[in-house]
Amino acid sequence: MKSDTTPNSFVPGAVELPAEMQTAIARRGDAMGPAYRLSYARPVAFVRGQGVWLYDRDGNGYLDFYNNVVSLGHCHPRVVEAMHRQAALLCTNTRYLHDSVIQYSERLTRLFPAEMSQVMFCCSGSEANDLAFRIARHHTGGEGIIVTEHAYHGTTHVASGMSPNLGVSVPLNPNVRTVQAPADCMNISGREQVGRIFARDVQNAAADLRRQGIRPAALIVDTLFSSDGVFPDPSGFLAEAVDAIRAAGGLFIADEVQPGFARTGDAMWGFERHGVVPDIATLGKPMGNGYPMAGLVVRPDVVESFGKGARYFNTFAGNSVAAENGLAVLDVIRDEALLENSATVGAYLKSVLTDIADDRIASVRGAGLFVGVEMRVPGGDAGESRDLALGIVNALRDRRVLISTTGKYETVLKIRPPLVTTSVHVDRFMEAFAAVLKETG
Amino acid sequence: MKSDTTPNSFVPGAVELPAEMQTAIARRGDAMGPAYRLSYARPVAFVRGQGVWLYDRDGNGYLDFYNNVVSLGHCHPRVVEAMHRQAALLCTNTRYLHDSVIQYSERLTRLFPAEMSQVMFCCSGSEANDLAFRIARHHTGGEGIIVTEHAYHGTTHVASGMSPNLGVSVPLNPNVRTVQAPADCMNISGREQVGRIFARDVQNAAADLRRQGIRPAALIVDTLFSSDGVFPDPSGFLAEAVDAIRAAGGLFIADEVQPGFARTGDAMWGFERHGVVPDIATLGKPMGNGYPMAGLVVRPDVVESFGKGARYFNTFAGNSVAAENGLAVLDVIRDEALLENSATVGAYLKSVLTDIADDRIASVRGAGLFVGVEMRVPGGDAGESRDLALGIVNALRDRRVLISTTGKYETVLKIRPPLVTTSVHVDRFMEAFAAVLKETG
Repeated sequence: MKSDTTPNSFVPGAVELPAEMQTAIARRGDAMGPAYRLSYARPVAFVRGQGVWLYDRDGNGYLDFYNNVVSLGHCHPRVVEAMHRQAALLCTNTRYLHDSVIQYSERLTRLFPAEMSQVMFCCSGSEANDLAFRIARHHTGGEGIIVTEHAYHGTTHVASGMSPNLGVSVPLNPNVRTVQAPADCMNISGREQVGRIFARDVQNAAADLRRQGIRPAALIVDTLFSSDGVFPDPSGFLAEAVDAIRAAGGLFIADEVQPGFARTGDAMWGFERHGVVPDIATLGKPMGNGYPMAGLVVRPDVVESFGKGARYFNTFAGNSVAAENGLAVLDVIRDEALLENSATVGAYLKSVLTDIADDRIASVRGAGLFVGVEMRVPGGDAGESRDLALGIVNALRDRRVLISTTGKYETVLKIRPPLVTTSVHVDRFMEAFAAVLKETG
Repeated sequence: MKSDTTPNSFVPGAVELPAEMQTAIARRGDAMGPAYRLSYARPVAFVRGQGVWLYDRDGNGYLDFYNNVVSLGHCHPRVVEAMHRQAALLCTNTRYLHDSVIQYSERLTRLFPAEMSQVMFCCSGSEANDLAFRIARHHTGGEGIIVTEHAYHGTTHVASGMSPNLGVSVPLNPNVRTVQAPADCMNISGREQVGRIFARDVQNAAADLRRQGIRPAALIVDTLFSSDGVFPDPSGFLAEAVDAIRAAGGLFIADEVQPGFARTGDAMWGFERHGVVPDIATLGKPMGNGYPMAGLVVRPDVVESFGKGARYFNTFAGNSVAAENGLAVLDVIRDEALLENSATVGAYLKSVLTDIADDRIASVRGAGLFVGVEMRVPGGDAGESRDLALGIVNALRDRRVLISTTGKYETVLKIRPPLVTTSVHVDRFMEAFAAVLKETG
């Protein structure tokens, strides 16, 4: 198993493709270079999207159980309309006063614990994590960062350098240490043990940093451990690690780029299920339902000194169109009761998956509409289990259902549909999934 | 003079403001924290924009001679329409095949020298410069970066760490060396001398890096030296420095975030006036006329090894809406002949500014619709000259004309109107400028 190849991606020459698709892929490679990957053994091409559906140009509908950027469904009319209205009126930056960004900042921060009352805007989750690092570094005087061993936090030098998920071709930065995700201790029952082991690992990593003269700046985790394999439970297990990093002089940064904005069903933010209050929470993907926007929410005392000295300006971030977009997203989450829907439909999805009697399903984990199904070839190794998971993902794709894989060995099916998914869509998904399980070895 | 304060920005309590504006500023500070700055001693607030005009809520029009993001004019209808059409149809990422991003990549790269044939997409100029660093580091095996002494290249840890413009509160990273901008040798006549001195400084900086065990990775410059004070001439002076960094084993990265997309009037990209072909050119601000998009264009051999090993995915960047936006921007530049307009109207602007007989104007420099007017208090120091420049900027703002300052001591008026500016707008600007010069000092 090569850990540096991209999971679930097209490999040129591996499968026969229609001539026209081959041409498009060749043109793309010529103009966009070698770093981009296409999903699925046989890539997909869409021309239209609506709700949980994506359509190819022959009009075939694909059930989208994977895209969490368009968390309110593809092309949600209220968001498209808000963006259009503001874009036709005025698009300016944060150096001028504009009501929309003030309103949005107030609405957004009110969704956080009272201690986290200030927001800064970015263009991407990568920028948000990068800025969180800059703030943590300034506040703590340290540089050391602790992440989980298959984490993904973005594409900038700092963010990619703390993203072991990117594989051995992207070296971790020297100030970064990894700890095992709670994944690896899930067989130990009970929140306390999981929490204690994770906290102990964080303590050890902090001590290791200090032994090498690097003061710890932060522990940063995706609060659903999305890239490590989806580990929401037992709720509360993060608390002890948060205490540990603070005791070591570092901050706790919750990467909410994937878990945030009602995804987990029980709360707006993933950290809430653990009963902790982060120093910084970073936001991204679903924040604009497709419009490029991201940011971080922070405790005022943590950003005070940084903000007074270092001015912060990010040309596009917090512009008036982004702010109106963000407001529309919050409106829709409220008006369509998407938090509740995520809880209800997510619970249904998890329960029907749990009900499947198949010894290749090692576990079903999830919170709200983010579910991981760990696949295992009985008696097989991780590579075989990974091939099983990837086979299922590609067989589903051939049945026009989109999911992908995650986890240290990419053995976990990553099921993450838009928040507007209904039980009817779940049934449709389960029908395809059952058929694929049956036909797969 | 404090070099770490933000030039031309609002200072709380320094001037009397309407109660309502005070409230808005207080709310903004509470919700957005201490790092944001507002432009002008008395901040501006707009509700609508069209062409070169911004309007406050009382309907007062402000002549916008500063904003280069909305390079085609505020709310250009063709761009707004393209964005709306695609946003209502489909917004997906580069993991799926989509024609728009392929088309846009081909259109964009064809605007570059043949050697620079591949593009990668980002969400901001900061991300583009950060990615350029990652690629240069991988390609050269070095870390060392050379920038000019008042350069600005962005907000990520890497980009802000090579942006001395941000002031002493944002430390430069240890792998960064600065060289004097060609600014400081402009009194020496002739391209060859300016070029030789700049190249010699680059050589020395590269040697200094090597003496400290840091292999040079790149020289990166804004090809108009926008933040150093606007230094376009003499054309061709960059060539020798480009040779020098390559001889030292580093790449030449042209930061085209400000000079790019027809701004300089003589060509689409600022590097072209110097007769050089960069290894990487980074793009940003005007790329989507307000829609958050950025990227870099690169020689295939420079990105080949990086791209094969390190997969690159940037959620929002290169999405189908961004691509359609970018295509519309290129269409408008072509159809409205904005390159030609930038040349013609820019030349007119420069000539009428040059014609002013005022011994406080030390020099007028510019290319296309990017002009710097260096102000100097005869017999005064840099601080007094800076106060003069800031006084003019704020007096213009009170007359509803927007510009700002730039340069090492912020003594240079930065005049950078949208590319749709006509000679009528220039005349209007000059009327206000003449009046302000008269009433100042």
